[in-house]
Amino acid sequence: MTSQHPYDLNDVLSSKRGAFRIPEGVIYLDGNSLGVLPAHVPARLSEVINEEWGTSLIRAWNTHSWIDLPVRTGARIGRLIGAPAGTVVACDSTSVNVFKVLSAALSLRPGRKVILSDTGNFPTDLYVASGLKQLLDKGLELKVVAPEEVKAAITEEVAVLMLTEVDYRTGRLHDMKDLTRAAHEAGALAIWDLAHSAGAIPVDLAGAGADFAVGCGYKYLNGGPGAPAFLYVAQEHQDKVASPLTGWMGHEAPFAFDLDYRPVSGIGRMTVGTPAVLSLSGLHAALDVFEDVDMADIRKQSISLSELFIAEVEARCPQLVLASPRDPQARGSQVSFRFEEGYAVMQALIAAGVIGDFRAPDVMRFGFTPLYLSHQDVVDAVGILAQILETESWNRPEYRTRAKVT
Amino acid sequence: MTSQHPYDLNDVLSSKRGAFRIPEGVIYLDGNSLGVLPAHVPARLSEVINEEWGTSLIRAWNTHSWIDLPVRTGARIGRLIGAPAGTVVACDSTSVNVFKVLSAALSLRPGRKVILSDTGNFPTDLYVASGLKQLLDKGLELKVVAPEEVKAAITEEVAVLMLTEVDYRTGRLHDMKDLTRAAHEAGALAIWDLAHSAGAIPVDLAGAGADFAVGCGYKYLNGGPGAPAFLYVAQEHQDKVASPLTGWMGHEAPFAFDLDYRPVSGIGRMTVGTPAVLSLSGLHAALDVFEDVDMADIRKQSISLSELFIAEVEARCPQLVLASPRDPQARGSQVSFRFEEGYAVMQALIAAGVIGDFRAPDVMRFGFTPLYLSHQDVVDAVGILAQILETESWNRPEYRTRAKVT
Repeated sequence: MTSQHPYDLNDVLSSKRGAFRIPEGVIYLDGNSLGVLPAHVPARLSEVINEEWGTSLIRAWNTHSWIDLPVRTGARIGRLIGAPAGTVVACDSTSVNVFKVLSAALSLRPGRKVILSDTGNFPTDLYVASGLKQLLDKGLELKVVAPEEVKAAITEEVAVLMLTEVDYRTGRLHDMKDLTRAAHEAGALAIWDLAHSAGAIPVDLAGAGADFAVGCGYKYLNGGPGAPAFLYVAQEHQDKVASPLTGWMGHEAPFAFDLDYRPVSGIGRMTVGTPAVLSLSGLHAALDVFEDVDMADIRKQSISLSELFIAEVEARCPQLVLASPRDPQARGSQVSFRFEEGYAVMQALIAAGVIGDFRAPDVMRFGFTPLYLSHQDVVDAVGILAQILETESWNRPEYRTRAKVT
Repeated sequence: MTSQHPYDLNDVLSSKRGAFRIPEGVIYLDGNSLGVLPAHVPARLSEVINEEWGTSLIRAWNTHSWIDLPVRTGARIGRLIGAPAGTVVACDSTSVNVFKVLSAALSLRPGRKVILSDTGNFPTDLYVASGLKQLLDKGLELKVVAPEEVKAAITEEVAVLMLTEVDYRTGRLHDMKDLTRAAHEAGALAIWDLAHSAGAIPVDLAGAGADFAVGCGYKYLNGGPGAPAFLYVAQEHQDKVASPLTGWMGHEAPFAFDLDYRPVSGIGRMTVGTPAVLSLSGLHAALDVFEDVDMADIRKQSISLSELFIAEVEARCPQLVLASPRDPQARGSQVSFRFEEGYAVMQALIAAGVIGDFRAPDVMRFGFTPLYLSHQDVVDAVGILAQILETESWNRPEYRTRAKVT
């Protein structure tokens, strides 16, 4: 693409684009699902594989500090989400981490029975909550309301309010500070899932008074496919809660090989088994890109990109209906449109090099990652989308056949 | 080393040594802790990083079948442990998998209260059991007896017998078939941890009638540091048990994004969150090495190597006391010796290029991995050990200071 959108001339983040490997001919609007490969990561991972594993072997646990990798990586993520040192650790998957923090939070409110969530939560969070409820068999209730009804549903029966800040389908943004305050006023605790927030929008966990949080390493943090997730526990709760998953890495002295479990003090007690060093090293390295970035600049650019996208789509693709909040302050860094044949249109779009994704039943989802997207990308992407819709080139059997992963 | 031990001349596995990258000047007797790097894995991982992640990006879930990687990798492991197709999946850490299978097993024996294990179990298995017991708060008892007292302790109060087949410290091997039969006769279920078995000795889970099993991807399977673990559920139990960790990957239709959890039929329901594709791809690739290997050949060579090691150590290092069973049929693929200053001796040995490890309080542990160790390695290693003991060169402050990871 040779043209350059005038808005791109003032982009303070434009120098970051070169820090990523964007495939030739691709406009990638799916960084909310899997972030692109940072250019320096292959060399770093090659070092981990060949030098650390291949040459140092078992010694690398000490010589390359593998043992501290979950906490070191957590600290880098903490900077992006307003979490003080020692409150974040990178480990396991988001689902497993939801299980840990939800169990921990419930143990702090033993008299209360309600886990409050909403229909905008990512399904796995609800599945995990329902699994834990069944496992504990203590008459817990998982109450799932519409996103706009959450605040009114925060009663004194609620033990834990568990929400995803940015809705995975629509990008709708909850007011973390306001809802956390409401939860606390009712005597409840608040768990925030930052899957679509971390690295995408400014987050201030400590400022909002959040009690627990979890989030994803492979979306806006660009940690690679299935990168370990992260987990936050507010300082004040850390030594009061037990992880339900009491693995040796959370032990005070894992290498004493005692028969009894004694949790280590601090965030480390939320780790379980041996860390996935390769995947975790990829995430740790990927975070280099954020070292000199101000999340306020990312937010500004994200809004500029998504506002332009909405304006262009509405002007050029009248078939599509906006599914995201129109107010940019009420959105994360993604924009969705509804269209009955959205699945097929998305496949045609992907075939043409514009990669977004689809969420059932009819949502076409587009993520805006200011570190590697330009305004010109947005205009070009909408041009291709408009042409697909106009010519109905999406109406082919190969685009209508659902793949295993959508 | 230019000499060649006569036993090595008949070694059917000697051609495999070239399939691994053993660092120059190192005799690696710690494959039971972290397997060495298979020579083809760096190129394969580079492909996963650059092509699958870097170029295919989100499309790789379908085009490179990332979504099936846990089950595909599980099937390759299954072949080595006597597990039929569809009974093994690679995911999460061993500790997390212990939690899942123990919870599942307990749910099949609701009237019983005792989890029976032994002091030879790896501590994390006991920690997880004790954490689950506390979480469920249903009057469960975790009964931990000496390994030789296990059989007599299998009463009709036992819900689940949970053992590690090969003792991590001494290599002592439980009789899986006999103990599983005893558990079944008492109406209990049996969970086997194969951390030090898979890839090291022949295992026949189906033949032994094991109900559940877990194991490690980064020891004898050479999957890389912190590689995902695996988990086995006997066919007959699969659709009767629920995972306590009900994440979206275990859902019947994860991409329908339903609000309610419906576990998929089969082993897939034991998966939780998004698989760690990089780490899991390393494990999947590492298993290539086993494709044309007969576990009976590995066992034969393992016994030959460890018998030679014991004979050489006892002849040349009279200070050390054998901590492993003398009968090779009663051992896995590792041999341990006790020595009060074992920690310092091991550090001196590692500094001299012979890598084993140490387990508190006084165990020097040596693993024998027939795929990349020769009899000459064994003789050379003992020569270096004997010299360290004779000259007391281990008696230096730098060898006596405990590292974070031992």
